[in-house]
Amino acid sequence: MLKPEDNERLVRVGPGKPAGKLLRRYWQPALLSEELPENDCPPVRVRLLCEDLVAFRDTEGRIGLVDAYCPHRRAALFFGRNEECGLRCVYHGWKFNVDGDCVDMPNEPSDTPMKARVKILGYPTIERGGVVWTYMGPREHMPEPPDFEWTRAPATHRLVSKTVEECNYLQAMEGGLDTSHASFAHNNHLGSKNTLRNADTAPRSEVELTDYGYRYISTRNAGEGRCYVRVYHYVMPNQQMRGAFTPLLTNLNGDDPYVMPKSDGHLWVPIDDEHTMVYNWACSSDQSVPLSPEFRDRWETWAGRGANDLIPGTYRLKRNRSNDYLIDRKIQKTQTFTGITGINTQDYALQEGMGPIVDRSKENLGSSDKAIVILRRVMLEAIRAVERGEMPPGLAPESHRYIRPYDGVIASGTRWQESFAKELVAKW
Amino acid sequence: MLKPEDNERLVRVGPGKPAGKLLRRYWQPALLSEELPENDCPPVRVRLLCEDLVAFRDTEGRIGLVDAYCPHRRAALFFGRNEECGLRCVYHGWKFNVDGDCVDMPNEPSDTPMKARVKILGYPTIERGGVVWTYMGPREHMPEPPDFEWTRAPATHRLVSKTVEECNYLQAMEGGLDTSHASFAHNNHLGSKNTLRNADTAPRSEVELTDYGYRYISTRNAGEGRCYVRVYHYVMPNQQMRGAFTPLLTNLNGDDPYVMPKSDGHLWVPIDDEHTMVYNWACSSDQSVPLSPEFRDRWETWAGRGANDLIPGTYRLKRNRSNDYLIDRKIQKTQTFTGITGINTQDYALQEGMGPIVDRSKENLGSSDKAIVILRRVMLEAIRAVERGEMPPGLAPESHRYIRPYDGVIASGTRWQESFAKELVAKW
Amino acid sequence: MLKPEDNERLVRVGPGKPAGKLLRRYWQPALLSEELPENDCPPVRVRLLCEDLVAFRDTEGRIGLVDAYCPHRRAALFFGRNEECGLRCVYHGWKFNVDGDCVDMPNEPSDTPMKARVKILGYPTIERGGVVWTYMGPREHMPEPPDFEWTRAPATHRLVSKTVEECNYLQAMEGGLDTSHASFAHNNHLGSKNTLRNADTAPRSEVELTDYGYRYISTRNAGEGRCYVRVYHYVMPNQQMRGAFTPLLTNLNGDDPYVMPKSDGHLWVPIDDEHTMVYNWACSSDQSVPLSPEFRDRWETWAGRGANDLIPGTYRLKRNRSNDYLIDRKIQKTQTFTGITGINTQDYALQEGMGPIVDRSKENLGSSDKAIVILRRVMLEAIRAVERGEMPPGLAPESHRYIRPYDGVIASGTRWQESFAKELVAKW
Repeated sequence: MLKPEDNERLVRVGPGKPAGKLLRRYWQPALLSEELPENDCPPVRVRLLCEDLVAFRDTEGRIGLVDAYCPHRRAALFFGRNEECGLRCVYHGWKFNVDGDCVDMPNEPSDTPMKARVKILGYPTIERGGVVWTYMGPREHMPEPPDFEWTRAPATHRLVSKTVEECNYLQAMEGGLDTSHASFAHNNHLGSKNTLRNADTAPRSEVELTDYGYRYISTRNAGEGRCYVRVYHYVMPNQQMRGAFTPLLTNLNGDDPYVMPKSDGHLWVPIDDEHTMVYNWACSSDQSVPLSPEFRDRWETWAGRGANDLIPGTYRLKRNRSNDYLIDRKIQKTQTFTGITGINTQDYALQEGMGPIVDRSKENLGSSDKAIVILRRVMLEAIRAVERGEMPPGLAPESHRYIRPYDGVIASGTRWQESFAKELVAKW
Repeated sequence: MLKPEDNERLVRVGPGKPAGKLLRRYWQPALLSEELPENDCPPVRVRLLCEDLVAFRDTEGRIGLVDAYCPHRRAALFFGRNEECGLRCVYHGWKFNVDGDCVDMPNEPSDTPMKARVKILGYPTIERGGVVWTYMGPREHMPEPPDFEWTRAPATHRLVSKTVEECNYLQAMEGGLDTSHASFAHNNHLGSKNTLRNADTAPRSEVELTDYGYRYISTRNAGEGRCYVRVYHYVMPNQQMRGAFTPLLTNLNGDDPYVMPKSDGHLWVPIDDEHTMVYNWACSSDQSVPLSPEFRDRWETWAGRGANDLIPGTYRLKRNRSNDYLIDRKIQKTQTFTGITGINTQDYALQEGMGPIVDRSKENLGSSDKAIVILRRVMLEAIRAVERGEMPPGLAPESHRYIRPYDGVIASGTRWQESFAKELVAKW
Repeated sequence: MLKPEDNERLVRVGPGKPAGKLLRRYWQPALLSEELPENDCPPVRVRLLCEDLVAFRDTEGRIGLVDAYCPHRRAALFFGRNEECGLRCVYHGWKFNVDGDCVDMPNEPSDTPMKARVKILGYPTIERGGVVWTYMGPREHMPEPPDFEWTRAPATHRLVSKTVEECNYLQAMEGGLDTSHASFAHNNHLGSKNTLRNADTAPRSEVELTDYGYRYISTRNAGEGRCYVRVYHYVMPNQQMRGAFTPLLTNLNGDDPYVMPKSDGHLWVPIDDEHTMVYNWACSSDQSVPLSPEFRDRWETWAGRGANDLIPGTYRLKRNRSNDYLIDRKIQKTQTFTGITGINTQDYALQEGMGPIVDRSKENLGSSDKAIVILRRVMLEAIRAVERGEMPPGLAPESHRYIRPYDGVIASGTRWQESFAKELVAKW
């Protein structure tokens, strides 16, 4: 359990809020590159950390991310015209470039001094790994751009997508970091004990603090003198990295697209206090093996967000809170633990089912929740660091540039640190 | 009119609220037995007195009614698996029996002391009369189970159903206790004065306080030296009982299913402050006459909640606030007083039309409102009794076990007390 | 920009609020005459200045506008029966005439003194110009009825309609009074400079205070030694009047129905703080030229509220906030400035896009906003006048009875005051 006042410090993300100030010290995903498919394409609404913004790609391909409202009389720039290196408000024609400068004010006399004075609030952007990132914190503290193995991998070897989750980012992220639920919520083979995750439902957890956050290791008894070890990374402040099942496990999970040697993960980016945009990425671990179209389709479908799983024109799931995720009680009796289709849809049902902001004062945490407990501690300490005027941890790309997660099986009594030494280093 | 502070005391039903504490001292309907049709069937969401719960029928047929959220990390138990005498959370597999004990905690070491310590909040339940009742008050004050004539009648002779009403329970119950509106809201034969209720639109009312609440009597001039007398019961804290029209009236109301010798009534059970679950019951008064399928269908349809009147998969009316109850202004001009189909749908239009919580400081009450005025007085006094640490009235089943309502016609100048003496006693 | 406390004074319209008290000192449109098409027709819900009312036309054709709730037990009179010179509540049959007197109380003894004592809150009404007007202020200050050229014109020469706008009345009205946005938001001929409004995008504005509010004049350079001059009226507290394009401009705007010699305008009537009923009127300026059915259809369609543009059975636009006004980005690139169809739909997109109540502390006003700045000043001063116990301006019909707006082209160097002298006087 968590004290209500600490919960409040962790979950509120608006400007000036403790967690809002922390999250603004890091580059955050604002939208996918594919949402701005070409120069001068239509602008896109972005709600991020409780702020309403609009993104546009200008005639030169630069991306602006500015206040959703024109500084003249507050008309919505979403309706604006993206033309000739600027976004023009359709109310009175005021036009702004990606830096926020007003470059045209056609309803005022041509010599008006207002044009030089008026600026629109905007944030710097950078494209990396198919994602448009932005930095919304104090300019003097702007860190180096995001730099992860998956953001360096070429588009052929990388996959990114996003989906809306209707709850606070923290309970979504806690669900992602949680390891033991995989044996229950994601058990899609009822009665079968021949998947490694199902065999041992009470994994042992270790958490090792690092400069970028922590890495944590879950160990399950795999029978026949073996252990199944998963090495995850939590990267400050809202990213997780996971390894793939190793080829060894192929025959155990024949229908899972896990057989690809890859890493994958999520970033849980707050839209506001009660909504989260989950960015999903996957990255081939083998430079000779790109992500095939068939793999991409199977992976996203398996996760529950394939082409047929989204409400057209949105990043929202058809299986959602309003329809109980289309739970099938007969399938739940006979085939899967939840009766819900889609690995991440199962997560959404559980995380959204808690309500928009879970009441952590009513929890009963056990040894399986170690990674969750330490996540909160790390976040609270980082919030305090910002409040003291210090730099929060994990800003320097060196701390996380070459990390890689990994899942594998080792002989009992051997150390994963040695067995996995090579696999835990980024190749890209 | 009622002082706003008294209104607040009467309408707020959450934990710790004055009326909430009073209502929790009595057994309350939580759901229908038919919602849990068999052992190990899917769990059902129950919102009751502002509390979110989940009900399940276990492998032995016992019914659990527990907190909607798992005490581990607050996942929704609605998604849970009902299996082997317990409801299992699909997040991490914690399992609870109908008593709220944690009987399995598979993601923790097998010797964890947490399993014995953790309980889930739950309430006792009992099935009576096709209804699952629960008691949500202090355990030391738990009264004997509900015991009315209709709960003792066999299923062949009894009918229960429920429908959602979108307003506070009190204004719904006040509408039920009100007698004079029948001549207006429920006048489905415009221009006809040959129904007894329409003939005399200003009935005289008497209210007699009893141990269980009160009985009240409305008397209408029926012409030809006769009176039409209705003897109702208000049973603390939220039930009403009404008699059927007598066979004498058959030819006067040929299309009403009132000809069956029976009693019927409602319980207005708060979902929360602004929503009410209305439980409807009817019970044959004649042990030799069961309720036929045809009667059941006609009765529920006449009330407005027949098989075709509900939104499929819900207990909500198709004719509802969002569509103005499909009022037909032409029928209102020519055939029925309201233009709305369904006796209780007419009630819902009027009770919900006041807004979710009516402002009783703006009322103008007359002599026809006597039963309403006394209802509020009795409820306020019972609230104060609980606040003083006393027992509220009507808890002992003896006080109401054998009461029965009745409607009938007597000669003017005779006393209904004598005329109805036999009919006012329960036979079941 | 405007101080937040002044903004609050201007935008809140409920009873007792500063702007609410000011607006209640003038006759306001309550509904269209056509909504009550015949005597004893069904009653109509009216929400006006945050008050819930119901309107009915009685057996003699008189219009009642009374509290939405029966004073007995607060049932909704919308469900009432409109019959024999009164509206009868269908709960207990209480009946009220257009003056608010209770004329029948059939569920009480016939000699009840309550009948004489009980009244329902109601407001006086008058029909003028196809509109039912009401006065909701103190009776002793009730001004003479509304009297404008368009309300005196016969139905053959006049058009009225209404549409719901989902924002505060003030930002809607500011959009209407704004002149320079016409060259942008309403530019439906991209690339064409041969419409006078598009040619000169920075018009000069003059504002002349008057007894009824102000008149304001925008002047655009029309080339070839000519100026295009528009003379508008702002009539306290929430009406605007505009002139038509003159016949001279016919060939420049071949598809605009502006060629009819007429005036037109809007009244922005608050439903509540966040919703506005916009009343639209047009009036032939030439007594020999009625408004033909074809003109009416073209005009309303051009504005975006033609017969096919409304959600059936409502005064709401199909193109609305929930569907981004069906903006077409391809048309926006190539044909029209906004990509939105319908002149007033363009206005709604911009005014509603600001949010329900715009934050005026974040504005940057220029010389083109002169009429807006003075509007606020005039309104704030009128609010203060009412607070001081004085009469606000513009109440006397003499001040505005014969005003008429006008648009025209004059030779540069000449004065519109002389050129337009005859056109600026009402003929009706």
